[in-house]
Amino acid sequence: MSPTLPHVRTRLTDLAEQAGVSTATVSRVLNGKAGVSSETRQAVLAALDLLGYERPEKLRNRSAGLVGLVVPELTNPVFPAFAQTIESLLSEHGYTPLLCTQSPGGTTEDEYVEMLLDHEVDGIVFVSGLHADSLAGRERYERLRSRGMPIVLVNGFAEGIDAPFVSTDDVAAIELSVRHLESLGHRRIGLAIGPDRFVPAQRKQGAFADALLRHGLVEDPASAADEHTVVTLFSVEGGQAAAVELLDSGHTAIICGSDLMALGAIRAARSRGLDVPADVSVLGYDDSPLIAFTDPPLTTVRQPVAAMAQAAISALLTEIGGARAPRTELLFQPELIVRGSTGAVPPAR
Amino acid sequence: MSPTLPHVRTRLTDLAEQAGVSTATVSRVLNGKAGVSSETRQAVLAALDLLGYERPEKLRNRSAGLVGLVVPELTNPVFPAFAQTIESLLSEHGYTPLLCTQSPGGTTEDEYVEMLLDHEVDGIVFVSGLHADSLAGRERYERLRSRGMPIVLVNGFAEGIDAPFVSTDDVAAIELSVRHLESLGHRRIGLAIGPDRFVPAQRKQGAFADALLRHGLVEDPASAADEHTVVTLFSVEGGQAAAVELLDSGHTAIICGSDLMALGAIRAARSRGLDVPADVSVLGYDDSPLIAFTDPPLTTVRQPVAAMAQAAISALLTEIGGARAPRTELLFQPELIVRGSTGAVPPAR
Repeated sequence: MSPTLPHVRTRLTDLAEQAGVSTATVSRVLNGKAGVSSETRQAVLAALDLLGYERPEKLRNRSAGLVGLVVPELTNPVFPAFAQTIESLLSEHGYTPLLCTQSPGGTTEDEYVEMLLDHEVDGIVFVSGLHADSLAGRERYERLRSRGMPIVLVNGFAEGIDAPFVSTDDVAAIELSVRHLESLGHRRIGLAIGPDRFVPAQRKQGAFADALLRHGLVEDPASAADEHTVVTLFSVEGGQAAAVELLDSGHTAIICGSDLMALGAIRAARSRGLDVPADVSVLGYDDSPLIAFTDPPLTTVRQPVAAMAQAAISALLTEIGGARAPRTELLFQPELIVRGSTGAVPPAR
Repeated sequence: MSPTLPHVRTRLTDLAEQAGVSTATVSRVLNGKAGVSSETRQAVLAALDLLGYERPEKLRNRSAGLVGLVVPELTNPVFPAFAQTIESLLSEHGYTPLLCTQSPGGTTEDEYVEMLLDHEVDGIVFVSGLHADSLAGRERYERLRSRGMPIVLVNGFAEGIDAPFVSTDDVAAIELSVRHLESLGHRRIGLAIGPDRFVPAQRKQGAFADALLRHGLVEDPASAADEHTVVTLFSVEGGQAAAVELLDSGHTAIICGSDLMALGAIRAARSRGLDVPADVSVLGYDDSPLIAFTDPPLTTVRQPVAAMAQAAISALLTEIGGARAPRTELLFQPELIVRGSTGAVPPAR
């Protein structure tokens, strides 16, 4: 029936090489024979998919159930990265992921959740959802929990929701950023950040004020907020607008709340004839896919997406299994990835 | 109940500015008053979402139904772009999008389709699905059609499937690319492309041979395939591997089957000390989001994602409404976006 099997047979060696197993093992998996570990089977299936072969019918998985995955949007490439990683893990555990992504004016988180409940999902993962919005009500999550729906909340925290939380440590991210720029001689460091109703933005602002104070770059925390922080949007345009203000006020380095903002900040610097990093240093946040290819390659703080996805799914599966995952917020340590957008402070003019 | 309304009220002017309407209109929409066109209402909702305000309960939409959207994966940023655009349009028409994305070894297209049928979707849009794979069976689509399920197939074509097709014109894309490089003086132009079981890859290869012949760059079409085309994968690593071969055989310009491949080709050129575009010109395909920020900014052929999404959704809604959309494949014209990765042929050494 499947027109691809003969073709697959002639490519056993390609598959074996891609999967890192013997051709005999590939054969065993393709023929549905026993005596193959589930990791090996998975590796061969992944090799089939990666090399673009159609998967033979008998190797199809039976779904253990549906799991909803709610992300804000797909424009910021860190969200597709979270989605792809979490989906892979769900699939590995036999669950079918239902990805719900939002667009301006489109289906909202609450509408998606209603739909997911109608379709009897086994659990829901929220990435940067309304739980990260300090002004949004948390009753929505309490209602889900009171129905016994397992949920996990990524990158946001709201006191009192009975669910596991998985976040990047925003305080550590800012400390890494400020220390890096300070060691390059920068004394006027600015922060370009998205709306301060969002928990990660609040945490970064607080940490930024603390870090400037600790490094002796301001005398009181209020001036960190008043003179060195610009609140706009997490987009390219938001970063550009914030950078214009921060450059006007003489900053030589800009820490951004997202890689997109950093791309906007670089654009703002260049549009006034400044070179990055010779005249201005710009630091991103996320380490989104492909961001290493930008001009200049972006220095940024990496969210450990794979480890966070792993922790989120592990907690969710624990809850789906009827046990209780820890309620402490799991804070993941970010890493500073130094590329080409930061450099020594320019000599004073 | 909603903690955000007082806050929203103080920001009426922001919302009005973002939506391009008066503050009175914003008020009318927020209070659910009549006398506002659906476009205006949508613009205000989009402004709320864009500025990060929670949408008041009474403005929630009732879903007209579910529509499945199947895309291959999210790693190539053109797929999140298609997903985001199609989802916006579905939401505008009151449908709730169910996004199904694949990952190596994860849930397959067929498994997703079964799940979508179980959940009684009103229609399914496939972007670069198995319909684009010339070796995959087309019975899966015939089965869907025989159940009366409305489907639309994007970027792929298979004779005999009773459904609307929406594609970028691959022949035009290659012709634009070859003409651009030829006008810059390049005579040895190579093509780096993904697996030739996929319809767009086949079309591009055929068009490439025709174009080289027509521009007098080869004497017979077979040599275009044998000497100037390298078939690998559509990924960064695929582009890198293909470029190594094409540079070894003295090509001064490389046309790539995806922007990701082009990034890999640039990396391959640099790793042997060549400058892009001074020594080698590299041309991408897709014009993925953020690709303008790469080093050098990528010259690429843009898929008209918005227009294609619009056509796909329009056809799907026609079919859902019980009418019949045209069965001719709609071919969308790509555009050449010239940035910094292509330049004049280097003087012969």
